[in-house]
Amino acid sequence: MKDLQVNREKLKIIPLGGLEQIGMNMTAFEYGDSIVVVDCGLAFPEDDMLGIDFVIPDVTYLVENYSKVKGLVVTHGHEDHIGAIPYVFKKLNIPIYTTPLTMTLIEKKLEEHEMQKSVKRKIVKFGQSINLGDFRIEFIKTNHSIQDAAALAIYSPAGIVVHTGDFKVDYTPVFGDAIDLQRFAEIGKKGVLALLCDSTNAERPGFTMSERTVGATFERIFSEHSKRRLIIATFASNVDRVQQIINSAAKYGRKVCLEGRSMVNVIGTAVEMGYIDDSSHTIIELDELKNYPPEKTVLITTGSQGESMAALSRMAANIHKKIKLMSGDVIVFSSHPIPGNEKAVSNVINELADIGAKVIFQDAHVSGHACQEEIKLMYALLRPKYAVPVHGERRHLLAHSQIAESIGIPKENIWILHTGDVLELSEAGSRIIGKVQTGGILVDGLGVGDVGNIVIRDRQRLAEDGIIIVVMTLEQHSNRLLAGPDLVSRGFVYVRESEDLMEEASRTVRDAVDECLGRNVTDWSRIKSEVKDELSEFVWKRTQRRPMILPIIMEAAV
Amino acid sequence: MKDLQVNREKLKIIPLGGLEQIGMNMTAFEYGDSIVVVDCGLAFPEDDMLGIDFVIPDVTYLVENYSKVKGLVVTHGHEDHIGAIPYVFKKLNIPIYTTPLTMTLIEKKLEEHEMQKSVKRKIVKFGQSINLGDFRIEFIKTNHSIQDAAALAIYSPAGIVVHTGDFKVDYTPVFGDAIDLQRFAEIGKKGVLALLCDSTNAERPGFTMSERTVGATFERIFSEHSKRRLIIATFASNVDRVQQIINSAAKYGRKVCLEGRSMVNVIGTAVEMGYIDDSSHTIIELDELKNYPPEKTVLITTGSQGESMAALSRMAANIHKKIKLMSGDVIVFSSHPIPGNEKAVSNVINELADIGAKVIFQDAHVSGHACQEEIKLMYALLRPKYAVPVHGERRHLLAHSQIAESIGIPKENIWILHTGDVLELSEAGSRIIGKVQTGGILVDGLGVGDVGNIVIRDRQRLAEDGIIIVVMTLEQHSNRLLAGPDLVSRGFVYVRESEDLMEEASRTVRDAVDECLGRNVTDWSRIKSEVKDELSEFVWKRTQRRPMILPIIMEAAV
Repeated sequence: MKDLQVNREKLKIIPLGGLEQIGMNMTAFEYGDSIVVVDCGLAFPEDDMLGIDFVIPDVTYLVENYSKVKGLVVTHGHEDHIGAIPYVFKKLNIPIYTTPLTMTLIEKKLEEHEMQKSVKRKIVKFGQSINLGDFRIEFIKTNHSIQDAAALAIYSPAGIVVHTGDFKVDYTPVFGDAIDLQRFAEIGKKGVLALLCDSTNAERPGFTMSERTVGATFERIFSEHSKRRLIIATFASNVDRVQQIINSAAKYGRKVCLEGRSMVNVIGTAVEMGYIDDSSHTIIELDELKNYPPEKTVLITTGSQGESMAALSRMAANIHKKIKLMSGDVIVFSSHPIPGNEKAVSNVINELADIGAKVIFQDAHVSGHACQEEIKLMYALLRPKYAVPVHGERRHLLAHSQIAESIGIPKENIWILHTGDVLELSEAGSRIIGKVQTGGILVDGLGVGDVGNIVIRDRQRLAEDGIIIVVMTLEQHSNRLLAGPDLVSRGFVYVRESEDLMEEASRTVRDAVDECLGRNVTDWSRIKSEVKDELSEFVWKRTQRRPMILPIIMEAAV
Repeated sequence: MKDLQVNREKLKIIPLGGLEQIGMNMTAFEYGDSIVVVDCGLAFPEDDMLGIDFVIPDVTYLVENYSKVKGLVVTHGHEDHIGAIPYVFKKLNIPIYTTPLTMTLIEKKLEEHEMQKSVKRKIVKFGQSINLGDFRIEFIKTNHSIQDAAALAIYSPAGIVVHTGDFKVDYTPVFGDAIDLQRFAEIGKKGVLALLCDSTNAERPGFTMSERTVGATFERIFSEHSKRRLIIATFASNVDRVQQIINSAAKYGRKVCLEGRSMVNVIGTAVEMGYIDDSSHTIIELDELKNYPPEKTVLITTGSQGESMAALSRMAANIHKKIKLMSGDVIVFSSHPIPGNEKAVSNVINELADIGAKVIFQDAHVSGHACQEEIKLMYALLRPKYAVPVHGERRHLLAHSQIAESIGIPKENIWILHTGDVLELSEAGSRIIGKVQTGGILVDGLGVGDVGNIVIRDRQRLAEDGIIIVVMTLEQHSNRLLAGPDLVSRGFVYVRESEDLMEEASRTVRDAVDECLGRNVTDWSRIKSEVKDELSEFVWKRTQRRPMILPIIMEAAV
């Protein structure tokens, strides 16, 4: 890619993630010698990525063009937009520009990695612009399920590109202003080259409800359950949601207690920064809970996705150290299960049912993403020449492209990109001119990228049917069998109850080894492969399983 | 349990599965020296049961009381009601009584296991009764998502118990009669001791729509997409669904092709038995497909749950041998994702989006299970003294119990049982008098029950972080190190790119071994545990991973 021709009149858009899944959002904008990067998120692992903690984008292209990269601009503080920063920044340390809450959340991450001193940062307010090389970037207020979410107007000599970030239109937000629709319209009037717009809810008709509607639901729940303890599970980062619970609690004379590490951290930060108003001193510490009757308390907890180690899951499984749920408790899921988490959430609900707790799902959540009518509104205000759907799985990008088409964007001006595509744009035309190296880099513990396809395939194989290890020791030169062959298995069968099977398996291996040594086979890889073949066949016949078979030959100089 | 007192006046209900999950349905009814078993289903494995194919109920109690067990009565032919038969019957061969289609599906299973000659079978028609010891069992017509579903009236000297099986109320079924509500009412008039009723949809208000409404949706889809090929994914066992597709195809001049092993098998059987009317000769073979223009064909396929090996998934991934999907194809999911399958279904939809196929979900499915108003109707017709919710997860049983309470069953007469509970019932009262051995027995390939907790835990550990094997050979008596220690890993890191790490790990192990041998430690388990401890600590520090560490010491007599 280094030698792609620089065309002074054209802008390049290069997504480095976020188009194959909801997660790992990162996009590079390149004009001449300037590159600006928007967002730097992580993705949660797919089911078959065994043992993986999360996935970060491959930034090889940016590292190769390090001198051009002017900065990272961040739209908001969710993990899929900021989570990869500490990892990526070990290779690519560039200045970060974003809004106050987002910056605080990023700083917490940098602190954990002891990087807070080495990264340049600048806080930007809505309406402000920053100059980054050939680009100017303006931050525009939007609404989302976290405070301080911004859309970006990216001014380049080739034209204006608008990136919505994650957004919804909330005319009656709980805190702060509604999305700045006037500014979008103004920029639209100037003429917009391309719109990169959130696709998450592009399959959903209509308009996403205001966050305030959840407040009305809380009011109802509080008034209907005045004799019961309330436990409300939601996302730690949904500051406005927590504010609304605090409001209802204050009104109904309850104290609020936060539980779960991320809940305590994020909400603590939000209170400090003035994003949450607790002037009624409703929030108490966990240890103070015992001073109040249960029906005068509300617990706000993590675990709304059924995460096994989160506070709610531990309560439901009765292994929480400080909180014991009781029959009669009311548990509110103020969330929807993220696709893939449905079963985990259902398992928690089953445990709650067994305790005799009442579970409420209905109306206690709204999405933070724009539905079809809001997406159309954005197009109507901005009237972009090109549409580049972002932030979604393939199905969402496709649905988004159909919306764009339905409101008059010509099909050839709609680009459903893949990660790594280099889209070149100008008023004159648009085309994909190449592909840069991209992909998901797996993070497992401290290891970044040391677990690849082979390791994952091995884990899948081990997970499926376990492993049988065959060890033997041969004398150097003579090839005389000094020890073994011994069989050791893990995750295959319960050996004590399968003695006959393992005995026969041993015999099969012994016969294969004897046969090899009898034929004076000296090539160990040959011996290994014969042992493997014979044992695999035996095991398949007897059990129809395919454990990993690992022959190990040791050489002893006697 | 063998010595539980026999009380001639009381009936015992002993669920052996089906109350902790949707699956593994099996219930024993015991009076005096007679036991009748209803259903014998399997469950699909939970996510953490790695490598397991399915789970069957533990029937120890029945085996211990073999002489009392008079027969198995089966309500309908779904896997969660018949799937465990071939496995259970290896220990417990009893006569089977059921309706024609159900029996045919059971017979196919018995054939696969070469057991068709050894199992006594009797086909029963709706309205007929059979005598089994102290019991008489009457089969009552219901509606469900498979033909020939029956409810059972179980007459015992202690009273009548009604088991609904899986049911819905469909006043306008596609084939055959509507549920026999009059007969339920008649039995209700006689007086019903207990009702065991389907809980699957107990959380859903209202009334499940008629299967015919899906037919109307198909009509619309066919008429709106006359220029495109249609591919409809549904459950192979939903004979009526397939009939409706055939009807629409015949009307719109399309040919129908079945794809997927179970689809071809079940529908083939249904056609042979006259449960499907293809008098218009709409069904063609896969090989004939090429003789028709795409827009004159419909493919009915398996894979509606995103199962990776099913026909639709193979088409979407472009690895199906005979069918290649094209942009413009219309894919209809005539199904809802079963909880836990949402992500897999979504992955297939994303692949379809990338091909450019149109995906239709809306209105192309109705449930086969009763919603709240239908459950109430059943209670209103039968007016049972006791309610025993069955067929559900804990949350569904709890919701069902609330329905029962809402329509006047006293709380103390509603029993949310756990598998294994022995519920003793009579007109005079009800109580749990004990617990029998139960549980899920894991089936992996040909192995039944040879994979238990230890093996599963090992698989989970292997899946998470892989394995490091440490092998060495010691001389007999002298304990001199003849070979090794060597390290071999699988699923841990990609070794070629982590040479330093593995080199250091080797050194750590060598030091630990040298230190042991230097101290003349002769206890091998001691050497192993020191190697394990040192290596674990090293690996955790360096990677924050916990691979399984498996030291193997071989003894050589030189």
